[in-house]
Amino acid sequence: MITVYGMRASGNCYKLQLLLDQLGRACRWVDVDSVHGETRTPAYLAKNPNGKVPLLELEDGRRLAESNAILCYLAEGTSLWPDDAWLHAQTLQWLFFEQYSHEPYIAVARFIKLFLPADHPRQAELPSLYQRGAQALAVMEQHLADRNWFVGERYGIADIALYAYTHCAADGGFELQSFPHLRRWLARVQAQPGHTPMQC
Amino acid sequence: MITVYGMRASGNCYKLQLLLDQLGRACRWVDVDSVHGETRTPAYLAKNPNGKVPLLELEDGRRLAESNAILCYLAEGTSLWPDDAWLHAQTLQWLFFEQYSHEPYIAVARFIKLFLPADHPRQAELPSLYQRGAQALAVMEQHLADRNWFVGERYGIADIALYAYTHCAADGGFELQSFPHLRRWLARVQAQPGHTPMQC
Repeated sequence: MITVYGMRASGNCYKLQLLLDQLGRACRWVDVDSVHGETRTPAYLAKNPNGKVPLLELEDGRRLAESNAILCYLAEGTSLWPDDAWLHAQTLQWLFFEQYSHEPYIAVARFIKLFLPADHPRQAELPSLYQRGAQALAVMEQHLADRNWFVGERYGIADIALYAYTHCAADGGFELQSFPHLRRWLARVQAQPGHTPMQC
Repeated sequence: MITVYGMRASGNCYKLQLLLDQLGRACRWVDVDSVHGETRTPAYLAKNPNGKVPLLELEDGRRLAESNAILCYLAEGTSLWPDDAWLHAQTLQWLFFEQYSHEPYIAVARFIKLFLPADHPRQAELPSLYQRGAQALAVMEQHLADRNWFVGERYGIADIALYAYTHCAADGGFELQSFPHLRRWLARVQAQPGHTPMQC
């Protein structure tokens, strides 16, 4: 059985939980608390030198890091990662968008609000994070104005990756009221067969 | 012929130039100066709503953003993007590493040093960028201690993506002297057939 090293409250880790549940695929889940230093221990760094969760470990011991690379690997050959060069390319475009233009603002604001004390110096980052995160949400809103899913005609791993931190953006202080297409897309994702909520 | 909208001095754009040169594939290159606002014009935002370069435009008008997604698309079916599920997965791992743990520090330090005045408030970001960027370089150094290339036994798009900003890390103030494996890898990349330097 595959093993996932992850933290339940992390959106990057939740992506894998959601995909595996929807594929009906079991995994051994090993909790690693990145907020309290468990990704920086020598034992964990030996598994992932970049010191992050999630991490996938196969039955034969091979390991793969980076949530969106793991999504692609696990979804290969399923309807969630369509075997078509252009659909693949567009999916990758949105996965890189998520990691570069979305997660560093929306997930980081959530981290600061949920896990750091109210007088922590990093609270000063919030105004800039709100500005950049709102730009990412606006790009998504525009894309969803005339389509149901991020890529092609069906739900796939681009939706899973973007859903992970968008659905809990309010935790970080983002307001989704002015993004009606985005809110309808969140509801469509939640209505997918096998959808499971984030456990945190 | 395909069109690339890009800025020559951007490592993210240079990735595509390097790949296309090595594949012997021609492109129409349209200069878009992201430092001076040319990615934020209504005309450009109509092409890429996320307002970034590079952007690929196919002969039929379809467009693809995100440098690493474009690398994957253009290298499909070539020796630079091997058709093997595990090699694909490892390549994607390093492409996401590059965009999340490397580029936001190493490229941003270079941007601040090359393009902003010496008294710009963003100069204050440099100490933190040096710390995080050095962590990324250390992860690369460790990985290269016992191998020639980032994935498998040959040069590929993971090497191209990571080379783009690593080879000019000194522009941003990074010192590579203490990373001997990394420096030997840079020399191996430069010795590849069809290698072309960054034009800036």
